[in-house]
Amino acid sequence: LAKTSEFGFIAQIQEQFSSTPDFVALGIGDDAAALRPSRGTYSLLTTDTLIAGTHFSLAYSTFEQVGEKVVAVNLSDIAAMGGRPRAFLIALGVSQEMQLSDLSQLYRGIKKASRSANLTLIGGNTTRSDGPFFITLTLFGEVAKKQMLTRSGACVGDAIYVTGTVGDAAAGLDCLKQSRVRKGSTHLIRRHQMPQARTAAGARIAEAKVASAMIDVSDGLSADLGHLIMQSGVGAALELSQLPLSPALKRYAKQTQQAALDFALYGGEDYELLFSVPKRKEKKLVQLRQEGFIQATRIGTIVPKKEGMCGRDINGRIHKITPRGYDHFMNKPSA
Amino acid sequence: LAKTSEFGFIAQIQEQFSSTPDFVALGIGDDAAALRPSRGTYSLLTTDTLIAGTHFSLAYSTFEQVGEKVVAVNLSDIAAMGGRPRAFLIALGVSQEMQLSDLSQLYRGIKKASRSANLTLIGGNTTRSDGPFFITLTLFGEVAKKQMLTRSGACVGDAIYVTGTVGDAAAGLDCLKQSRVRKGSTHLIRRHQMPQARTAAGARIAEAKVASAMIDVSDGLSADLGHLIMQSGVGAALELSQLPLSPALKRYAKQTQQAALDFALYGGEDYELLFSVPKRKEKKLVQLRQEGFIQATRIGTIVPKKEGMCGRDINGRIHKITPRGYDHFMNKPSA
Repeated sequence: LAKTSEFGFIAQIQEQFSSTPDFVALGIGDDAAALRPSRGTYSLLTTDTLIAGTHFSLAYSTFEQVGEKVVAVNLSDIAAMGGRPRAFLIALGVSQEMQLSDLSQLYRGIKKASRSANLTLIGGNTTRSDGPFFITLTLFGEVAKKQMLTRSGACVGDAIYVTGTVGDAAAGLDCLKQSRVRKGSTHLIRRHQMPQARTAAGARIAEAKVASAMIDVSDGLSADLGHLIMQSGVGAALELSQLPLSPALKRYAKQTQQAALDFALYGGEDYELLFSVPKRKEKKLVQLRQEGFIQATRIGTIVPKKEGMCGRDINGRIHKITPRGYDHFMNKPSA
Repeated sequence: LAKTSEFGFIAQIQEQFSSTPDFVALGIGDDAAALRPSRGTYSLLTTDTLIAGTHFSLAYSTFEQVGEKVVAVNLSDIAAMGGRPRAFLIALGVSQEMQLSDLSQLYRGIKKASRSANLTLIGGNTTRSDGPFFITLTLFGEVAKKQMLTRSGACVGDAIYVTGTVGDAAAGLDCLKQSRVRKGSTHLIRRHQMPQARTAAGARIAEAKVASAMIDVSDGLSADLGHLIMQSGVGAALELSQLPLSPALKRYAKQTQQAALDFALYGGEDYELLFSVPKRKEKKLVQLRQEGFIQATRIGTIVPKKEGMCGRDINGRIHKITPRGYDHFMNKPSA
């Protein structure tokens, strides 16, 4: 890689991403990018980093997958606000071992994911690093002011919903780490390697105004529900038997004698949307679901704050749940 | 550091930066931040990373200085568009050796620099890394649509101006690296450790509409002038005797038998503003300068593209100048 000039490489990338939609007044290649904000919207900004060895292993993921994933991780944050993703900036730390073909692969993944979300690359920064490869994406999105969803609007009595299935990505990583038989676990592994953000569902939920609060499930269902209820000043009662578990997860958990619920509650990296729905809005949500716009499952109810977070199992027993996710400083599950 | 929870630390930081001006609809602490864009403006976005060992050495800079510097580096990009900085996001890679006190120092520097630029922290992401410490800042700014300055508006006959002095930061780094006598070089060293972005000057130049193109000097005067003339489709003739050199740089160059002009042309990290001024606007610029709003020096003239970049020395001899800056992939000056 040392033989290739940084500027030459960046120029190449610029050409690959050369589309400039109307809202981009000035794309990549100047001191800063310039965007035309849309009327009546908030500008949304989020940033997320993936570091080799911390967030992913190149033994388990290709550079192309990492490229797709870092876009998805950021898209998921914009989706959780009910927003539409628009444009992004990349900051890259290129490790010594990396080849130009690795960078090309990475950008292939970024391009794939950003194209399908209709995103424009508007800036970036590429640097050689003595350490592991890392990539930081900053994503700019927009949301109509009256549609924005935060973590803090949930009220007692609201139903709790989650899109898709939870626990798959964590089981996929477990499978890769344990070098277990991977037959039948392709779905789980793919969800770890190439999560898909719920971009369309998030925007739809916001437009239909069916939710009172929303968050994406990145740290794990219990941890992210914990954030949502904390910021809303409420508690949550889950119906554990209702958690949406994929057949692949159930099979994997059985095969490896692990609890599927542990993956679902504490696993993380699902990039599903978790949201609360006021009673009077549930009919509308069910309708959206029937029309095929949103795939979501009712998993519990918002309760008073003093009740904290608990889950009722299939036998009717109530369990206290301690929100727990992945804490990068601790390098282990965190309270 | 492993004893401290990431979430706990982030919560602490959030409190420190808790101000939320009117244009921030939703600050740090949700899935994304939400801003109210101002009418008639473009939203500006830029990102820049500093990596330990690549962009700075902790032997030469404190964490507080690194914090100040990463803000300045990004502010400089917004200034170069003629914009006003508003809000920023931080992505942090925390190395194993770092102590909590290092992080506090870093944030002290960030706070100092962001306060004096009236910036609001709106998001972030902190991760443990097996490699060197790095920090990526993404800065959001705004500029009135009619005032935005790009790299591509320079015309033949325009005068070339630069703010402040050039070459100091590079000489300061040279001084630190060579462990030379540092007496009398404090000014140079400080310009490497704690560059100051020309935020006010950039906005003033834009408001007064005196410039046809602008860029900040980060890679080195010759490299950045090279970007500006390439994107404007013109050439540049510099008056080498007019380059603004600080007394400290002249003294250091003499002491160490190096050419002060080399630091000025190829050094980088000046974070000054380089801009072209149409003839009919020069009077206005001189006025702004006299009123003390801008400190800038006329260093040359925009010429036809075919003349490339050249410099006339004090004896009237013309030298061809090859734009050269620092290329992180090559780890050496680059063409």
